[in-house]
Amino acid sequence: MHYYGVAYYPELRTHEQIESDLTLLAEAGMNLIRVGEFAWCELEPAEGIYRFEWLESVVERASSKGIWTVLCTPTAAPPAWLTEQMPDMGYVDSQGRQRPFGSRRHYCYNHPRYRELSSRIAEKLAARFRDHPRVIGYQIDNEMAQEGTGRCRCNLCKRQFHAWLERKYGSIEQLNARWGTVFWGQRYDSFEQIGLPVATMEANSISPIPAFFDNPSLRLDFERFCSQSQIEYLQIQAEALRTFGSPNQTVTTNGTGTGTNSINYFDAFAPMDRYGVDAYPNLRGEDLYAASFEWSLARNVAVSTDNHRFWVLELACGGGHGLWGFEGRLQPYPGAIKQLALHAFASGAELVTHFQYLQFPYGAEQLNYSILDADGIPRRRYEEVRAAASDLREMADMLERTEIRCDTALLFDYDSLWSLGIKPVNHDFTYVDHAREWYARLLESGIGADVISAEAGFDRYALLIVPSLFVTDCKLQAKLKAYVANGGTLIATFLTSVKNKDNVAHQQSLPAGLTDLFGIHVTEWEPVFEQSIATVGIEVKGERLSGSNRHWTESLEQHGAVLAAEYMNTFRQGQGVISSYKYGSGTAHYVGTTIAREAGKEWLVSLAEQAGVSIAPFQLPSGVEVIRREGEGETVWILFNANTCEKEIAIDGTFVRLSDRLPVPNNIRLPAKGYIALVSS
Amino acid sequence: MHYYGVAYYPELRTHEQIESDLTLLAEAGMNLIRVGEFAWCELEPAEGIYRFEWLESVVERASSKGIWTVLCTPTAAPPAWLTEQMPDMGYVDSQGRQRPFGSRRHYCYNHPRYRELSSRIAEKLAARFRDHPRVIGYQIDNEMAQEGTGRCRCNLCKRQFHAWLERKYGSIEQLNARWGTVFWGQRYDSFEQIGLPVATMEANSISPIPAFFDNPSLRLDFERFCSQSQIEYLQIQAEALRTFGSPNQTVTTNGTGTGTNSINYFDAFAPMDRYGVDAYPNLRGEDLYAASFEWSLARNVAVSTDNHRFWVLELACGGGHGLWGFEGRLQPYPGAIKQLALHAFASGAELVTHFQYLQFPYGAEQLNYSILDADGIPRRRYEEVRAAASDLREMADMLERTEIRCDTALLFDYDSLWSLGIKPVNHDFTYVDHAREWYARLLESGIGADVISAEAGFDRYALLIVPSLFVTDCKLQAKLKAYVANGGTLIATFLTSVKNKDNVAHQQSLPAGLTDLFGIHVTEWEPVFEQSIATVGIEVKGERLSGSNRHWTESLEQHGAVLAAEYMNTFRQGQGVISSYKYGSGTAHYVGTTIAREAGKEWLVSLAEQAGVSIAPFQLPSGVEVIRREGEGETVWILFNANTCEKEIAIDGTFVRLSDRLPVPNNIRLPAKGYIALVSS
Amino acid sequence: MHYYGVAYYPELRTHEQIESDLTLLAEAGMNLIRVGEFAWCELEPAEGIYRFEWLESVVERASSKGIWTVLCTPTAAPPAWLTEQMPDMGYVDSQGRQRPFGSRRHYCYNHPRYRELSSRIAEKLAARFRDHPRVIGYQIDNEMAQEGTGRCRCNLCKRQFHAWLERKYGSIEQLNARWGTVFWGQRYDSFEQIGLPVATMEANSISPIPAFFDNPSLRLDFERFCSQSQIEYLQIQAEALRTFGSPNQTVTTNGTGTGTNSINYFDAFAPMDRYGVDAYPNLRGEDLYAASFEWSLARNVAVSTDNHRFWVLELACGGGHGLWGFEGRLQPYPGAIKQLALHAFASGAELVTHFQYLQFPYGAEQLNYSILDADGIPRRRYEEVRAAASDLREMADMLERTEIRCDTALLFDYDSLWSLGIKPVNHDFTYVDHAREWYARLLESGIGADVISAEAGFDRYALLIVPSLFVTDCKLQAKLKAYVANGGTLIATFLTSVKNKDNVAHQQSLPAGLTDLFGIHVTEWEPVFEQSIATVGIEVKGERLSGSNRHWTESLEQHGAVLAAEYMNTFRQGQGVISSYKYGSGTAHYVGTTIAREAGKEWLVSLAEQAGVSIAPFQLPSGVEVIRREGEGETVWILFNANTCEKEIAIDGTFVRLSDRLPVPNNIRLPAKGYIALVSS
Repeated sequence: MHYYGVAYYPELRTHEQIESDLTLLAEAGMNLIRVGEFAWCELEPAEGIYRFEWLESVVERASSKGIWTVLCTPTAAPPAWLTEQMPDMGYVDSQGRQRPFGSRRHYCYNHPRYRELSSRIAEKLAARFRDHPRVIGYQIDNEMAQEGTGRCRCNLCKRQFHAWLERKYGSIEQLNARWGTVFWGQRYDSFEQIGLPVATMEANSISPIPAFFDNPSLRLDFERFCSQSQIEYLQIQAEALRTFGSPNQTVTTNGTGTGTNSINYFDAFAPMDRYGVDAYPNLRGEDLYAASFEWSLARNVAVSTDNHRFWVLELACGGGHGLWGFEGRLQPYPGAIKQLALHAFASGAELVTHFQYLQFPYGAEQLNYSILDADGIPRRRYEEVRAAASDLREMADMLERTEIRCDTALLFDYDSLWSLGIKPVNHDFTYVDHAREWYARLLESGIGADVISAEAGFDRYALLIVPSLFVTDCKLQAKLKAYVANGGTLIATFLTSVKNKDNVAHQQSLPAGLTDLFGIHVTEWEPVFEQSIATVGIEVKGERLSGSNRHWTESLEQHGAVLAAEYMNTFRQGQGVISSYKYGSGTAHYVGTTIAREAGKEWLVSLAEQAGVSIAPFQLPSGVEVIRREGEGETVWILFNANTCEKEIAIDGTFVRLSDRLPVPNNIRLPAKGYIALVSS
Repeated sequence: MHYYGVAYYPELRTHEQIESDLTLLAEAGMNLIRVGEFAWCELEPAEGIYRFEWLESVVERASSKGIWTVLCTPTAAPPAWLTEQMPDMGYVDSQGRQRPFGSRRHYCYNHPRYRELSSRIAEKLAARFRDHPRVIGYQIDNEMAQEGTGRCRCNLCKRQFHAWLERKYGSIEQLNARWGTVFWGQRYDSFEQIGLPVATMEANSISPIPAFFDNPSLRLDFERFCSQSQIEYLQIQAEALRTFGSPNQTVTTNGTGTGTNSINYFDAFAPMDRYGVDAYPNLRGEDLYAASFEWSLARNVAVSTDNHRFWVLELACGGGHGLWGFEGRLQPYPGAIKQLALHAFASGAELVTHFQYLQFPYGAEQLNYSILDADGIPRRRYEEVRAAASDLREMADMLERTEIRCDTALLFDYDSLWSLGIKPVNHDFTYVDHAREWYARLLESGIGADVISAEAGFDRYALLIVPSLFVTDCKLQAKLKAYVANGGTLIATFLTSVKNKDNVAHQQSLPAGLTDLFGIHVTEWEPVFEQSIATVGIEVKGERLSGSNRHWTESLEQHGAVLAAEYMNTFRQGQGVISSYKYGSGTAHYVGTTIAREAGKEWLVSLAEQAGVSIAPFQLPSGVEVIRREGEGETVWILFNANTCEKEIAIDGTFVRLSDRLPVPNNIRLPAKGYIALVSS
Repeated sequence: MHYYGVAYYPELRTHEQIESDLTLLAEAGMNLIRVGEFAWCELEPAEGIYRFEWLESVVERASSKGIWTVLCTPTAAPPAWLTEQMPDMGYVDSQGRQRPFGSRRHYCYNHPRYRELSSRIAEKLAARFRDHPRVIGYQIDNEMAQEGTGRCRCNLCKRQFHAWLERKYGSIEQLNARWGTVFWGQRYDSFEQIGLPVATMEANSISPIPAFFDNPSLRLDFERFCSQSQIEYLQIQAEALRTFGSPNQTVTTNGTGTGTNSINYFDAFAPMDRYGVDAYPNLRGEDLYAASFEWSLARNVAVSTDNHRFWVLELACGGGHGLWGFEGRLQPYPGAIKQLALHAFASGAELVTHFQYLQFPYGAEQLNYSILDADGIPRRRYEEVRAAASDLREMADMLERTEIRCDTALLFDYDSLWSLGIKPVNHDFTYVDHAREWYARLLESGIGADVISAEAGFDRYALLIVPSLFVTDCKLQAKLKAYVANGGTLIATFLTSVKNKDNVAHQQSLPAGLTDLFGIHVTEWEPVFEQSIATVGIEVKGERLSGSNRHWTESLEQHGAVLAAEYMNTFRQGQGVISSYKYGSGTAHYVGTTIAREAGKEWLVSLAEQAGVSIAPFQLPSGVEVIRREGEGETVWILFNANTCEKEIAIDGTFVRLSDRLPVPNNIRLPAKGYIALVSS
């Protein structure tokens, strides 16, 4: 079953409007609404007084038109009466300011009474809707941590952090030893002396004291504490929903993927029934790589379950007015909404809801993203959604009987992300962008990949890419070695294994604990700035390609490895920068810089071929992506042209169209924002 | 009578110096000083102890040299003893910081006791100087709202804002309904729960919580409340001055025109006797369009009175040291001071005072803008002022017997300004700049225009330009329709009639309530960014001109209108962007983007010709402006060359020079920064 | 004796590690460690409990390997127990935030009890180590004022500032008169009413109220008060160290040269035994001019003593990870560390310690600048240090028997620095950069110079350069006149003598009080922006050179002087911008703008020749510097090529190499980052 619909806010609509809204949705072929997201003040207008009738009526009307419902717990919008009751429930930001009532998410997720009231409203909701067969599930809260609400610094949080540290370290002496507080004479006598870190890595936040240098170990633990506190908050609601709801109803929340960095989603979604995610890709751009990265992560977040279908609880549809996050809003390129929706389904989504049905006339999101303009007249965006629903119905069977299986994986690690955010190495380098760049290079090369955590099994992959795995422990080092020893092909990039889990530097030659795996020592490293760029020469299939280094650059000393690339100029001339080493039955490659796109791609393809990775049999122009799905003995290839112009794709082999099983020529032309599903014949 | 002089600070000068200063002024032909601006600590050195003798002596000495005086109430500089007395009188900014003593304007304009003391010092001043025939008037305070003092957020203001809202809305239910607080669950139970908005649009202010999204209706009402509070504060002083001063003395204040955006000047000056304004145009630039915009607004601010002469209480004279407002200070281009002064008088000023006489040796404005350098030796700037005084005397008669009459107007609206500031649509677009750009295009085309409020009468204008009238109500919509129906030519630009007076979106097709007037629907809109620019083709007199779109762009669906321009490329190709529609006896044009300068000018001229607007009979090079004055059956044209090089101007018709009534050739040459007055012969 | 070593942190190392660390240092030929810098929590783990054994053991082990020790007082890192004890000891920054525990330098230098405890720990340290012959001296605290800790604004500081002002001015009337508080009605009734300035010129600090305009006299006095308070704090410790330490032990602190601007180092080091400085020049750049400026200042800071040898307590060695001060860290260019160390010794250093021995595995400075990487394996940076130690031994004798003697000086003045920081004149102009630019131009021309204070004797210099001496009094004006009258050649640049010591403008023609010395009046001035650049033509030896003006530009009116340069275009065409005037037996030159590099250099050389200044007999390519040392009848020239490529240097005269006394050719080639010492033969 696939669900396709919209976020919908009936609390802003009259009965008549609701009726015609649902009719219009049904006519477009949509079958889902997500409702109730910020409606606490409507559901519980005063403490203990509940009003669910209006919501029930919406659910039933929708049901009568064949439309399913996802209900939201409204806790992202604590009402005025509640806020007034608890003056200490306010979120406190990095600047020490308490978030006032008047926007959303102004609460501290650790506040005991707020947790209690959150649980209670979730309980009431689930109890009321448990028997509605058309209510397929619940979304908890909304986009935890967004708008700079992921690192509360109130006094309560401070005390809880002390307790959290005490549980973790046992004694202050242990903490002092592991954090190395003797540096700058910062030895604590008690947990109570520990302040919350001053510097911050949160989006939209400001470090109140520009030149304050916190202990990086403190900072990493604070990131973990905040992540775990928010996960606890989600769990409390999940428990209420499970206890009082029906087991047939899915419990999840809408994360924001790599859009936030304060929650470890691998941990957060482990106990959820589905991964839920909001996604706002650029509908005017010319690639879907970043979107694809999110979908791949989405399929692999929940390692505990073998069902990898995910929910996209909000998907961009473009348009809108005002500068949001300081950016103006463009209309979608024609075809882009439809393509994006199908791309999500083809990539494993079970549910997609667009944000949102109709432009809000009032409030902060006034005239923002929507399918319909404020006048309610269906126009281009509505027509695209209708077309997407139609295409989805055509593809539904195929999507049911096939799934995505990758033999390549890319490791994504929150400790490394946080640690590199705490001490960035270059203004133009971030961990997430670096991982995404490698993922994009794979897609460009026709190689699909899973984005996995360090906890995932590596052995089913022929090729494992590990970008800047900055933080490691012995266990992870051993796991990487075992993977290669057993025949895996590993590519690790610069800044691998620099720090331990305490965010303290390993005091070994780099990559620490892995020099034997890679057969190299890193002898020198530095960021790459405009004035210090070097040319790197890479050997690919006997040919020498070259390009500039970027971001960060390392010099490799051979301890057994062969050099695949070296510096061609500057004082590093002749020093190694990429190495390859046979280790057990596999090979371990170390890439000491970000290499130029073309050369890097060629090198990657040659490696993938050696590793026996399956590569799509298409010559892919830039911006064209192919998704391979397999099942019931059939392989389906879905090609997406994200460009705003037609592209020609050369095909190696014989294929038929999925829709009519007619053969396709050797060169197919995909129109701007077009897509096509092919089957190997 | 015309007054020309300087801002003067005798409290910093000895008796001997005052004597020689006034002599030097008189020798330059100046006849006015503005004094007392920040002298509270001199006028009332301790509470209730008044010292006016020194000021009286200055007034009398000036008088003896034929120099008139404008006195200032000194309330922009509350003295130390007063500040100490009232710890809660301090202005509180967007960051919650109380403005300390040590600069200026550190008071809350709503503070009852401060209002009382302000009124009292105004009263004492007026009582003392009511019988001085050479004291022609009073300036209240100084530049209200400047330096980020226009939106106090102290607790008193918060309570007053609650009361203001209660008076406006009657009940909290009404407010909830009109503001749509059900969005994001923000329904208030009482007025007391309403917080002041977090985000800010004030110059020099910072939004303390970067990603805080306030309700836009709250924000617009807060703008209005702050504007009205400041107007009240001015009124209190005006009343004291009127009660205790002489009816022959003019009461005003020095606004800053479009330099501030927290006071609705149409409301503020309605009860004043004159519009008073400070103006600091760029004396090194090559046009006077922005200055002209201010003068046009100045003539039209006071709709209640038929006397449109205004006062320029501070006018730039260049020079100076230090970065003010983070900008360094250049010397004026030779001729620029003289030209600017005459331009102001020709544009309707009755009084011009330069800021200021002599460089301050101490204090915050040390070595800043002045006629004389700190050593007191007359140099270039003094000579220019002397020449200006001389030219003014030559033109005085003509200025007395003529006045400016325009048949074109441009609508300027504070609600739209505020609303577009609250939710900006593009980083490079502001409402004020957009209005100014249309005004400049008129001037370049030889068309003088009045800058008017929505309350003004439209009917006397042949052409009415309404840039981005974002906020409308039925009354204003009807007024626009009546104007066109009765034969007017209306040009409205993108983002017209999007929101109502509650800053809530109209839920109709755009331009809301005006689709029948323009014969179009706006079907799509978006900001224009670098990467999404389109080419627009415009039909002018059978020729197709073209240029890029800018700022914001809309697609127009014809409902009767003809298209004057359409997109020539991008996916919008063929869609309309400018329309024209016959409505009643007039025509309504809708312009869906900012069009390129040259094409836009040609189109505008062709429209103006159709509308029967009078166009100056000169071929105006860029940067040359003509002011038309009429009276006693004569038309005078004053041409200003703002360029820093000579310009040749072709003349259609026969003219004589005003000065000597000699005929001028068909091509006259105006030197850099030159001007000339011509009379139709 | 010359000391060469590293900053070392034994508190982070085991006994075994310390042993091997010291061995490695000794093997590299190093003979010094600086220790104890932040070790308060180790030295006094709880109040009154002292632990010096571990430190003593380090000193003794070092001693046994021939290594001397400099000990630090650990007061930059007050321990947790102390911070907890005194909640009011925290540094309060410009934003009103108290610096919390968790970084360093979080104390108020005026806090009486903190001063007491600082003195006590200094006393204990000195008492313990007074008899250790290998402990050669003490460094007090660490980098006073760095990281925005040089202008505490706590309540205690405010009260002390009031007392300081009262002592200075005697009465509030005096202060009112001298500060001109009548401007903007700011007259104080008592010292208690004076607030600390709101605006700030401190690095890394933010002015909390963007558009707040303080009285500039208040601001200058606050700079002085903060400087003097910090000097007092240093003195208290110096006294303890002198009282309880040995007279053979040197007492100093590590300043940061022009890296900070909140301490007048001329005053601060007057009572110290040596000037101590930290220096982090760019090891990837292509000149040493900025470093040389610091060394020249270093030689001349202590006017009271004739021994001009200074200590470099921290010297850069490159490498490192993380963005420090928002900048990433590059590795040194090969040879750069060695060159920099020898450059410091050749420029007068007696002691150089690199920061630091081994990368910190934890804490804020994790993986930052060090000789050894975290794995402790000696690599390139270690080898360079070893080579530097070897070269130093070769040059040691020469350095002992010679010294630097300059006949040119450049005046550096804290009042002018502060005053121009309080009211900057152009975004791209700073006083320090301007002074450095003139110094660099001297070096490029082969002219060595002393960087001196206004208190220094001028008469021993043939040429005195006075860049933008903004603040003057009669005494200083008279001293400059006497210098020229007695035959000196003086070059002063724009913005000379504009303000008096109260930061109040002189009310005379500019340069105030010096128009008779220069034979000119400045008639007009302004900043130079992109759009207002003029071409300046300069007469040098009958030839006319030209170039653009920069920063600031003045027009000179001749009152006796001849013009050496004038404007060649813009409306200033024909006006003078550089003048020369015979005054007594000397000549005074006034330079009204920053002139283009090449033209400026030619003009400077021609002047220097006339003044009889000794110019090095080498044709110096850009980036090549020569240091002249004299002694025992011999002149030694040490040439440094700071470029990253070989340079050829033409020699006028006959020289031999210092090392082997063999003659050198007329064209010598210095490799990248190379150096050579020559002796006139």
